[in-house]
Amino acid sequence: MSAMAPPVTLADIRDAAAAIGDAVAETPMSQARTLSAIAGAELFLKFENLQFTGSFKERGARNFLVHLSPATRARGVVAASAGNHAQGVAYHAHLLDIPATIVMPAHAPFTKVANTAHHGAHVVLEGEDYAAALAEAQRIAHATGATLVPAFDDPLIVAGQGTTGLEIVTQVEDLDAIVVPVGGGGLIAGIAVAVKAENPDIRVIGAQVEGYAGMLHALGQAPVPTGGVTIAEGIAVTEPGVLTRGIVRELVDDLVIVSEQRIEETIALALEIEKTVLEGAGAAGLAAVLEHPELFRAKRVGVVLSGGNIDARMLTSVLLRALARSGRVVRLHIEVPDRPGVLATVAQLIASARGNIVDVEHRRDQPGVAVKRALLEVSIETRDQPHAEEIVKRLEAEGFRVEVE
Amino acid sequence: MSAMAPPVTLADIRDAAAAIGDAVAETPMSQARTLSAIAGAELFLKFENLQFTGSFKERGARNFLVHLSPATRARGVVAASAGNHAQGVAYHAHLLDIPATIVMPAHAPFTKVANTAHHGAHVVLEGEDYAAALAEAQRIAHATGATLVPAFDDPLIVAGQGTTGLEIVTQVEDLDAIVVPVGGGGLIAGIAVAVKAENPDIRVIGAQVEGYAGMLHALGQAPVPTGGVTIAEGIAVTEPGVLTRGIVRELVDDLVIVSEQRIEETIALALEIEKTVLEGAGAAGLAAVLEHPELFRAKRVGVVLSGGNIDARMLTSVLLRALARSGRVVRLHIEVPDRPGVLATVAQLIASARGNIVDVEHRRDQPGVAVKRALLEVSIETRDQPHAEEIVKRLEAEGFRVEVE
Repeated sequence: MSAMAPPVTLADIRDAAAAIGDAVAETPMSQARTLSAIAGAELFLKFENLQFTGSFKERGARNFLVHLSPATRARGVVAASAGNHAQGVAYHAHLLDIPATIVMPAHAPFTKVANTAHHGAHVVLEGEDYAAALAEAQRIAHATGATLVPAFDDPLIVAGQGTTGLEIVTQVEDLDAIVVPVGGGGLIAGIAVAVKAENPDIRVIGAQVEGYAGMLHALGQAPVPTGGVTIAEGIAVTEPGVLTRGIVRELVDDLVIVSEQRIEETIALALEIEKTVLEGAGAAGLAAVLEHPELFRAKRVGVVLSGGNIDARMLTSVLLRALARSGRVVRLHIEVPDRPGVLATVAQLIASARGNIVDVEHRRDQPGVAVKRALLEVSIETRDQPHAEEIVKRLEAEGFRVEVE
Repeated sequence: MSAMAPPVTLADIRDAAAAIGDAVAETPMSQARTLSAIAGAELFLKFENLQFTGSFKERGARNFLVHLSPATRARGVVAASAGNHAQGVAYHAHLLDIPATIVMPAHAPFTKVANTAHHGAHVVLEGEDYAAALAEAQRIAHATGATLVPAFDDPLIVAGQGTTGLEIVTQVEDLDAIVVPVGGGGLIAGIAVAVKAENPDIRVIGAQVEGYAGMLHALGQAPVPTGGVTIAEGIAVTEPGVLTRGIVRELVDDLVIVSEQRIEETIALALEIEKTVLEGAGAAGLAAVLEHPELFRAKRVGVVLSGGNIDARMLTSVLLRALARSGRVVRLHIEVPDRPGVLATVAQLIASARGNIVDVEHRRDQPGVAVKRALLEVSIETRDQPHAEEIVKRLEAEGFRVEVE
């Protein structure tokens, strides 16, 4: 690869920035003081979740679309995506008066279908998964003469995403490293080209979610991805781009894997501390800093928050689990004698320990519970884990058998 | 009032801006395109929720603290607050090396106590409510010689909050109106002084939450506030300031009341569309625009998002209720014959109607349900209200008795 002409250059990315102009936001980048203290590094967050359609995908989509000739535009474009690429293409095709068809898997989340249709695209629901949707998109492209807008493996797409890197080095000086979520590899490839051309001393580090270390695998550094359910569906790519993997091999310093749980915790932290909403993929870079602090200790680190399109129901599950993990909401199973006044006694004990009861269920018919005894299931809001333990001890001191769920 | 010298002037606010300097963030202000379309007005959001301690309160606190003499600083400061004022005072007292004692009501939320202590303040938990905490703060001030930092009714506090107004008129040109949440009145008084001095044609409109229209009452435009539980505890003030009410009477064009439910919906909208976290009080201004669209139709409106300190558990409740209201999660009670295979039949019907079952409970011992019949309680994720109704119809067509919770 290194002997050949580079497939995407800094000049391409500067051209993309000019071509995109004001049609895509220059998102804010700011220091995150509390998160820096937590991470032991100086963190600067790049808020790509604040793009109009909620992710960086607009950059590449816009750059690709504006480079189409008038005749090509007239035949329309087609794209396959269940997520952010769909919205980015739909929105900018609409702005540019290009007819757009977006093929989404038949079971794509309602909100994403609705948001894509909202931007004026014709939405086709087809296929069980992304691969099937892509096949249908290719079929439509062949049949109608429409142009397929690739999701990542294309020089114009990579150059568009690379404009993120140009902004980062302008917005924050003297960064030691930049951390970028990696799925197909379009974003990190573009950022790496831009950043390394501007300052080769800045390390570019990619974050992949466990189960989908497709880029690491493609570079021979990890086994075949196992797949599975993930909250970071935006980077759940087992087969990264060919163009992008070449650039990553050449320019990216390190790729790390983050766990599902760390991503969930990071979404909750970003919400509570930064007051900002991240989707799973969008949180992967920040999660990498928290999961691999030794790589970033005392460094100035730019972190790309690549997207914020998370379903409200998913977000509530994440928050509830985060509360449970931090011990701030614990659920206790308390075996009690089945007689009047017991609930009052238990409630009084919990209140005197400054626990806040948020939910109670009283059950008589549980297996394993003796006749004449009942099970109280109580959810309690506490300060933290030690506080939760203190409440359990107080209940046990009064003779109740307590299990923590 | 109008015959007397104005208690706070534009010059005071300019002085406050100079005194505060870089210690408080100039928060971003940006156009909200999707929310504008929803509201039928051109909305520009001022993100005071992105201040370091999560609210505008830092502005007034900083201005008050930097005006204390060295001797006074050495004796320390004390403040009473269960919320944002506590964090603002604690943080800036710490930065200025001023010993700070914050009195919070004994049952203040754990997270707010922890955040305040985290900023280095000595936290005293005392009293059942804010009034009792304030009395204790006054007692401490008298006993120790510490200075009480008022929450709103003070010229330096009002001038500090007014710096928000200076920023707004610099950040967005030609606004027709600015909407501001109103509790004690410090923020709107400061903004009104700044904005009216710069451009008297800009309407300044206050938003109060139902049950706490204390400013409207003080100005003789509403009955005595009824109080009660509210999600907007940051503006749950029945007795606004004396200084502030004078300025509001003089300069504010209109005060409107918003409902609890509208505030909840607004928190969910801000999260889903703007990817930003608002507390109840912080959402009140935006809620006012959505609840009283006739006041803002086709106007250029600045909306102050005054704070983002909402408990994660509270936020999940708000999101879950918003999902339920939009019909995106419906809970159905379905009476079924108590025989094998029924659950499979129901699940199949729901799936074929493209509903997504998120939770099932199966009960046999419900009053009102015949013997040999059981009750299925099923939570289903749907596209919207009509989709939910379609699913109910399909179940009824198969002979099931369905109630929507």
